[in-house]
Amino acid sequence: MHRPPLQHCRKCGHAVEYRIPDDGDTKIRAVCPACHTVHYDNPLNVVGTIPVWDNKVLLCKRNIEPRFGKWTLPAGFMELNETVAEGAARETLEEAGAQFEMGEFFSLVNIARVGQVHLFYRARLLSDQFDPGFETIEARLFTEDEVPWDEIAFRTVGETLKRFFADQRAGQFSIHVFDIT
Amino acid sequence: MHRPPLQHCRKCGHAVEYRIPDDGDTKIRAVCPACHTVHYDNPLNVVGTIPVWDNKVLLCKRNIEPRFGKWTLPAGFMELNETVAEGAARETLEEAGAQFEMGEFFSLVNIARVGQVHLFYRARLLSDQFDPGFETIEARLFTEDEVPWDEIAFRTVGETLKRFFADQRAGQFSIHVFDIT
Ligand SMILES: [Zn+2]
Ligand SMILES: [Zn+2]
Repeated sequence: MHRPPLQHCRKCGHAVEYRIPDDGDTKIRAVCPACHTVHYDNPLNVVGTIPVWDNKVLLCKRNIEPRFGKWTLPAGFMELNETVAEGAARETLEEAGAQFEMGEFFSLVNIARVGQVHLFYRARLLSDQFDPGFETIEARLFTEDEVPWDEIAFRTVGETLKRFFADQRAGQFSIHVFDIT
Repeated sequence: MHRPPLQHCRKCGHAVEYRIPDDGDTKIRAVCPACHTVHYDNPLNVVGTIPVWDNKVLLCKRNIEPRFGKWTLPAGFMELNETVAEGAARETLEEAGAQFEMGEFFSLVNIARVGQVHLFYRARLLSDQFDPGFETIEARLFTEDEVPWDEIAFRTVGETLKRFFADQRAGQFSIHVFDIT
């Protein structure tokens, strides 16, 4: 769902031009020469959870590209008409079929290079039985030592997991804001 | 910049249909009958700062719609190729012409009804002289008692300011995550 640049006007369908608009803007935008609509392309939010069972974390083995067969936390693109927490809960249900209670906000990770912000909540698992959806080959619990660190699908997930286990060892959770370049 | 629904395919320009796609999705999307592209519409991030000078906060009187003439914290839509903090700093420069150092992340505010997430950082002002851009009629410092609470442009701003002043009185800042319905 990485969006290719807009080629046609989303309002009238005419081919767009890429240029600085005439309204005082300073950035190059897709501008429609027919209906004069200026189109903005903005970052996307990816929302997910760290589902916890005792000292273990739930990871999902991806059944889809990108990173087919690699392990990830349940996460996906935030939708309209939901909060960050609601989107994170939806993805956890869809990808892991887990029973859980949402916990506290945990991390905000910027990946400016690809125009994304990743947002993770902690979640408390109510069962160690999972019913993953079609996007997931397998959902399994891992202690820190068991995590397949070399087989993690995304750096946002690996860096969030490292901070989670460090906080868990320290016995105190805080909110982590960081960038991946 | 509140986006009206997409009417034409951004790839080929053909008029789209709104329906559930054939790929296992469960939500209604804009689907192109000509090139079969599925178009997703996602929430937008609004990023800004709480610029602080002693016990005062910098507010900007809006020179643009919506809420012309009302007071706001410097904030605007996050752009591609920037982090939340970089976007918040950019808006603070553009709208207030302030000299400042970025501080810590302060609030994440969901407004699911309009598909937005607002994200505020604290900022430390280095001067009490401002050079606001065309979007701002006036930039001025306010103590908590002086804030024109009935003339605040957006609830995200009012609710963020209330929590900021409460933390300041308590002598300890934390990160605030909340929803506006
Ligand atoms: Zn057009
Ligand atoms: Zn098309």
